[in-house]
Amino acid sequence: MQALKDKIRDIPDFPKPGIIFKDITPLLKDPEALRFATQQLAAPFLDSNITAVAGMEARGFIFGTLVAQALNVGFIPLRKPNKLPHETESVSYELEYGSTSLEIHSDALGKNDQVLLIDDLLATGGTAKASCELVEQLGATVAALGFVIELDFLKGSDKLAGYQVHSLLHY
Amino acid sequence: MQALKDKIRDIPDFPKPGIIFKDITPLLKDPEALRFATQQLAAPFLDSNITAVAGMEARGFIFGTLVAQALNVGFIPLRKPNKLPHETESVSYELEYGSTSLEIHSDALGKNDQVLLIDDLLATGGTAKASCELVEQLGATVAALGFVIELDFLKGSDKLAGYQVHSLLHY
Repeated sequence: MQALKDKIRDIPDFPKPGIIFKDITPLLKDPEALRFATQQLAAPFLDSNITAVAGMEARGFIFGTLVAQALNVGFIPLRKPNKLPHETESVSYELEYGSTSLEIHSDALGKNDQVLLIDDLLATGGTAKASCELVEQLGATVAALGFVIELDFLKGSDKLAGYQVHSLLHY
Repeated sequence: MQALKDKIRDIPDFPKPGIIFKDITPLLKDPEALRFATQQLAAPFLDSNITAVAGMEARGFIFGTLVAQALNVGFIPLRKPNKLPHETESVSYELEYGSTSLEIHSDALGKNDQVLLIDDLLATGGTAKASCELVEQLGATVAALGFVIELDFLKGSDKLAGYQVHSLLHY
């Protein structure tokens, strides 16, 4: 995993002073490292009953798509408001300042689906928790959540208590 | 290609009355069809000198990442304003109402790069043209552009005159 960690770049003071942003673009730029990350995200679920991978806009689209293909299941995009064209379900959640919402197509999943949620980063867990609720609103089951990076000090895993969380890199 | 076309769903009156939106989510949900689309997007470039694939936020991330992996080259995200954490280059362009801009990390590409630009849809070509300018601002070369869908009646290809455009499905 150290080879993977070497592909994550620290950017101080982004998006605001005091925050150290974990930049994944060096990882995306290295096809072997990106393949390795995909394999590691998918590995625990190769012999599981996952029927779909859902990914959060926008960076979750990158890893979610790759993991879905690795598991040979469909990819379900979870999108910001008013982006999905068909009938949607929606979940609102709090941000540091104000609130936002996440949407899914109402026909994207059903009660027999076992869903793996994928995003690049687990921080406070707000987006991840909202994503779980969205999947469950459609009657589907959240089988697990996978992240390239988990910021342990923000305790996102606590907010996801009861769910299986699989993170490749911890900070 | 008809099998692929069967996975694109028409949504009338989205995002506004009179527009028929091409919904790619059925394609994303079918892993075999998505693999086929990726192979078809990558096929003309398997023996080329492409050194990187760039994709436009957000749906371009999905296909761009898959094509980059198929060609075994890096993926470069082109993002909406204030999303990329490191030093960026930017290009502004006109939308139907108002204007927006697209950003790339300044160190993402160099003068020896031959870039394949990937997005899901070519409409009027505004975003695609801005993406070409962004790549060229870094001294790199746009080798070609690839799209899953091209809306011929909007004449986006005219705006991309001089560039190689490879679209899988035409409407």
